[in-house]
Amino acid sequence: MKEDMETYKYHDHKDKLLKRLRRMEGQVRGVHRMIEEDRYCVDVLYQLAAIKAATNKIGLELIEDHTRGCVARAVKEKDDDGESQIQELMEVFRTFAK
Amino acid sequence: MKEDMETYKYHDHKDKLLKRLRRMEGQVRGVHRMIEEDRYCVDVLYQLAAIKAATNKIGLELIEDHTRGCVARAVKEKDDDGESQIQELMEVFRTFAK
Amino acid sequence: MKEDMETYKYHDHKDKLLKRLRRMEGQVRGVHRMIEEDRYCVDVLYQLAAIKAATNKIGLELIEDHTRGCVARAVKEKDDDGESQIQELMEVFRTFAK
Amino acid sequence: MKEDMETYKYHDHKDKLLKRLRRMEGQVRGVHRMIEEDRYCVDVLYQLAAIKAATNKIGLELIEDHTRGCVARAVKEKDDDGESQIQELMEVFRTFAK
Repeated sequence: MKEDMETYKYHDHKDKLLKRLRRMEGQVRGVHRMIEEDRYCVDVLYQLAAIKAATNKIGLELIEDHTRGCVARAVKEKDDDGESQIQELMEVFRTFAK
Repeated sequence: MKEDMETYKYHDHKDKLLKRLRRMEGQVRGVHRMIEEDRYCVDVLYQLAAIKAATNKIGLELIEDHTRGCVARAVKEKDDDGESQIQELMEVFRTFAK
Repeated sequence: MKEDMETYKYHDHKDKLLKRLRRMEGQVRGVHRMIEEDRYCVDVLYQLAAIKAATNKIGLELIEDHTRGCVARAVKEKDDDGESQIQELMEVFRTFAK
Repeated sequence: MKEDMETYKYHDHKDKLLKRLRRMEGQVRGVHRMIEEDRYCVDVLYQLAAIKAATNKIGLELIEDHTRGCVARAVKEKDDDGESQIQELMEVFRTFAK
């Protein structure tokens, strides 16, 4: 449920997030290069695991921002006590926890 | 333990792997753009979950290639019945099962 | 941060939770029996995977109850907007997302 | 593919496995008791996370035993170079890595 508001909690550390995403992009390019160069499978796998860990970390931070921002605001201000935001939070967490 | 051989099992589908890695790179750039545009947190999170799923999928395929290629070859040809490759495989399993 | 209140959100479906936990207990006993009977490793592994899935499912339901109950109440009623409950929730998220 | 042989690799540490499974059974009973006693959700969740971690650990040990035992034996002795055991290994690993 998009909030009709200007910025989200993650705005507070937006630059850091963007920097980490650029590093992640570089990591994916790095794996691409390893495959092109027929590098040893296990070395490639550890790079992929690093990308997975970086994605997890950014995701959990955004979940924390979202909980502290949109969900908490909806709990306080909405008639349904933020019920729909809580459902939405749990669905995205389930997707992420896979 | 790098094998002194020219190609690995993943060589059979190298082009497909490279194509998927380029798509993954695009997905990371897409998340970068969403953050720049202050998009809704939950929408960003689903894109990150997609990157995580893609990374997992490629990783599991490479693990299968590695098992079928390097590990199986070491089991057949090496004096230690491939013991060191099996240990290496298990460490990769543990890293990916996190 | 234990809440000084009588029941938690999971109280609404306590009997169902207790029933599933008894089934889980039976599943663990079942794996114990399989190992005693020297059953094929892969068959044992699928039973362990079922226990892991059952644990995950119960855990995610309790997280949802907790978010809807204790965390939402703290967000509405506490001076710190439920900040300590949100931090606690995120630590549980991180533990479960492993 | 059940092997027509007497024992599996996990036989070497069968007693330890049985002991850990009994402890796991106790942990599940512990969670059952906590729910009966209306204990704080977060405390219950950390116990569930401990059961999940114990299940994972036993599972990965069995995967290692299976790889070193049945899979390696099939790779060495079978006409299909253990192809069906490798597929079976990867399927159980995918189920476990969820």
